[in-house]
Amino acid sequence: MALETYVGNGARRAARVRVAVDTMGADRGPEEVVLGALEAAEDGVAPVLFGPRGLDTGGLELVESTQTIGMQDKPAEAVRTKPDSSLVLACRAVAKGEADAVISAGNTGAMLAAGLLELRRLPGVQRPAIAVPLPANGAPSVMLDCGANADARPEHLLQFAHMGSIFAEEILELQNPTVRLLSIGEEAEKGNQLTLEAHRVLAGDSLLDFRGNVESRNLLETPGQVVVCDGFTGNVCLKAIEGTILTVLGSLREQLRATRRGLIAGLLMRPAARSLRARLDPDVYGGAYLLGLRHLAVIAHGNSSCHAIANAIRLAGRGVQHQVVERLAERVGERVVASAGPETDPQK
Amino acid sequence: MALETYVGNGARRAARVRVAVDTMGADRGPEEVVLGALEAAEDGVAPVLFGPRGLDTGGLELVESTQTIGMQDKPAEAVRTKPDSSLVLACRAVAKGEADAVISAGNTGAMLAAGLLELRRLPGVQRPAIAVPLPANGAPSVMLDCGANADARPEHLLQFAHMGSIFAEEILELQNPTVRLLSIGEEAEKGNQLTLEAHRVLAGDSLLDFRGNVESRNLLETPGQVVVCDGFTGNVCLKAIEGTILTVLGSLREQLRATRRGLIAGLLMRPAARSLRARLDPDVYGGAYLLGLRHLAVIAHGNSSCHAIANAIRLAGRGVQHQVVERLAERVGERVVASAGPETDPQK
Repeated sequence: MALETYVGNGARRAARVRVAVDTMGADRGPEEVVLGALEAAEDGVAPVLFGPRGLDTGGLELVESTQTIGMQDKPAEAVRTKPDSSLVLACRAVAKGEADAVISAGNTGAMLAAGLLELRRLPGVQRPAIAVPLPANGAPSVMLDCGANADARPEHLLQFAHMGSIFAEEILELQNPTVRLLSIGEEAEKGNQLTLEAHRVLAGDSLLDFRGNVESRNLLETPGQVVVCDGFTGNVCLKAIEGTILTVLGSLREQLRATRRGLIAGLLMRPAARSLRARLDPDVYGGAYLLGLRHLAVIAHGNSSCHAIANAIRLAGRGVQHQVVERLAERVGERVVASAGPETDPQK
Repeated sequence: MALETYVGNGARRAARVRVAVDTMGADRGPEEVVLGALEAAEDGVAPVLFGPRGLDTGGLELVESTQTIGMQDKPAEAVRTKPDSSLVLACRAVAKGEADAVISAGNTGAMLAAGLLELRRLPGVQRPAIAVPLPANGAPSVMLDCGANADARPEHLLQFAHMGSIFAEEILELQNPTVRLLSIGEEAEKGNQLTLEAHRVLAGDSLLDFRGNVESRNLLETPGQVVVCDGFTGNVCLKAIEGTILTVLGSLREQLRATRRGLIAGLLMRPAARSLRARLDPDVYGGAYLLGLRHLAVIAHGNSSCHAIANAIRLAGRGVQHQVVERLAERVGERVVASAGPETDPQK
């Protein structure tokens, strides 16, 4: 099978990248998403909005939807029973070649379900994975899976390592990225049943630059690497990092506001705080890639600001320009199927 | 069987609490541990040191050991082949009633192995768990298991909930502590196979005040609760929090040092920073409890300062005074055996 038959819209790439934007389901409402799309449109991406009739799009193209998937909806059920939702229509437009990539700040589970149903997995990919850039000191790293699959097997982590390596090369611009396994000790014999076996599998793949385990305490201090883990662990770890950043900065602000001396210190430290926030703010990347599908899908934070939405749209555009899906298809087709065996049922 | 036959040294409680201190294996060397023991000795605890002949103990009692277990030693093997190590001798002294509790800042795995071998599990306890106080906003919480068992089953998490509740009542002085399950979404249907099943088991135990799932991002903002998880997840989460605190504070310091304005801000904010560190510094508690054994064992950070060691010794003393082991024995004997079935083999 030629690559073109399943990786989609190569011919369109010379033109402006068209990104299908689900305007519904985000915490701050569709207006914030529209503002983000308008911001991204100034940078050469062509957003196509999916949302209810009458939505003020500031002149951007709108595809009308009659249904909405909310944060509380059960993902698989919602996708099945709401075929005219903005999310499903946006994914379908990409599948049909009417857009190059899709982004949503709505229900993550529903995005995953719609992705599997409408965009479908690349041949050879056992599980798609959510890849999230980490603000490591020096150069960003990428961690995956951050929540697409709550349970995983060692061979899934091997695929994540290959998919993450391509993400690191194309999106983070790292040359020859190294791969680490997230575990509870740096030694090979430290871990749970999954990581002990995954360590063996990763070490046995000569095409990866596998450097062993990494502990979560060192994630932000070890730049430019691909960190693999199951989706439950990745999600817990990522949210622990995000929550702790917010707590530390929030507590410091509170302490400073309590005294006059602190208030002055707060004013003086503003530039430093801003620069710190620029590094640690998840909005800088805006979104996570859902890797392993036949088309690009980007998941934005539920409470994204318009700037975060704009960054997520740019991230999608960049993925299309760098042919991330085509490169994944190649690498998974050539290598991973051979080393990890045939495609298996996603229900373990 | 009467409680006294397996919970040990009740009669000694009226006297000063004797804490067996393993001086070896800590990152900063035995001298730092001795300094910590001397600090704790001023507060009414009686430390008994275990270490090599000739160690300057500043007048504290020394039991001489001829072997040392290092950070790189394989835990079970080290405990078996080094019966005259400071760690094994310290545990054995507690088992024989010569001390009331044991602390070590050495190899955590070896402490766990020595605990299982020398101190032994309480009847009915399937797995011991490492319980770590979290610096939540308002009142500390406790998370367990933070690494004693890399893999766990739902009924283990149920026992952790009971053991953690007693820890919260006796050590954190929380009345009627609520129990939460660490997962990747607040809804009952979000999680992996382990947490989905554990949620059902926890919700079915009418003796617990179970309030459902908690996400790692909210751990530091939800005070006064017992958070249960498997040891792999707990260890990853805890180290992510610790690492992020260090990274954020370190990056801020770096930013401030880069400009004159920042330097002044740094000077002015010192009191606020100190107060923040007092809340978030793991040294404040000094150590984690290894719960579920017939005697108290406290695990201190490998790189503990002498103050952290002193706090770990005080924590052990407090546990003895509050009869944590006796209360665990009661609760596990009465309830958990009944609801979780008979003791099972620790090798899953």
